[in-house]
Amino acid sequence: MKNLSEQRLRHEVVYEGKFLRLEKDEVLLPNGNQSIREVVRHPSAVAIIAKQEGQLVLVRQYRYALGQETLEIPAGKMEAGEDRDRCAERELREETGYRGRLTYIGSYYSTPGFTDELMYLYLATDLEWDPLAPDEDEFLHVERLPLHTAVADALNGKFVDAKTILGILLAQSKGFFAEEAEK
Amino acid sequence: MKNLSEQRLRHEVVYEGKFLRLEKDEVLLPNGNQSIREVVRHPSAVAIIAKQEGQLVLVRQYRYALGQETLEIPAGKMEAGEDRDRCAERELREETGYRGRLTYIGSYYSTPGFTDELMYLYLATDLEWDPLAPDEDEFLHVERLPLHTAVADALNGKFVDAKTILGILLAQSKGFFAEEAEK
Repeated sequence: MKNLSEQRLRHEVVYEGKFLRLEKDEVLLPNGNQSIREVVRHPSAVAIIAKQEGQLVLVRQYRYALGQETLEIPAGKMEAGEDRDRCAERELREETGYRGRLTYIGSYYSTPGFTDELMYLYLATDLEWDPLAPDEDEFLHVERLPLHTAVADALNGKFVDAKTILGILLAQSKGFFAEEAEK
Repeated sequence: MKNLSEQRLRHEVVYEGKFLRLEKDEVLLPNGNQSIREVVRHPSAVAIIAKQEGQLVLVRQYRYALGQETLEIPAGKMEAGEDRDRCAERELREETGYRGRLTYIGSYYSTPGFTDELMYLYLATDLEWDPLAPDEDEFLHVERLPLHTAVADALNGKFVDAKTILGILLAQSKGFFAEEAEK
């Protein structure tokens, strides 16, 4: 099998922001030609499928990049040096007010064509009220949907972002919604 | 319900690249405070679940942003003025060599915290060999997996990117793999 890898020839940091860093590299392609790769370096993040009495806990927020409000599963970036389990606990408490029993259920790269952002997915059960203050630039409403409605909405296009659709379908496919479906 | 939206106060284009544009805006938050939003503007893209004789057609490629080879469903960016159906047909032919009967099955925003990239998902069936030359900086191997293996791999973490996991779980949940599962 041919080698597919690309070698870095030149590295440039175009922008270093609060969270993201934009890099523009010149690379050597497998056929000996050269090309440019623009890469957004971004912290890893967590997202949480939080179940409570047969319902999924969601957050409504304004997404500036999209210019619209969205309904998503709670999520957030890992802070420097933060462990992913700790991050999941913190984000769930900040965004929904709940602490829960957390189980890691999978991960994915959001869009590997231009960023290394990695999303860790968790299931949260046995929720107990134990809020933390949200980030000072975050404004959220907590909403709930029956699990079967959430699954239907993941299939019919009512949810718009990858982590919410993927998280719900993954949890459903792994059987984590089965008990509630029987009630 | 409180208004969650954020108003743009100042707009700056930090970087304009071949595909992506990085913007840094100052915004007015719902509570009257100000904050910075860094947004990567990116073309929409398509990704294709291509079925052939009970198998899923995949492409192996080197992802520079991740520094590793990945096995993904075929995908690519929409060109300026290009229709999404046309893009799906072109990308499938460029990346796998096949033309197919295409059905739109859903869409998602990859990661709305920092980019507007929108991914359109298609199902492709009735594949016929009709290749187009790939982009000059793209190097790919076509590989195939039985549909049931692809579903198992979407659940067990063998696939690493959102579009591949989400695309397979969506196609499976919508019943598009059902016929093959019975064979």
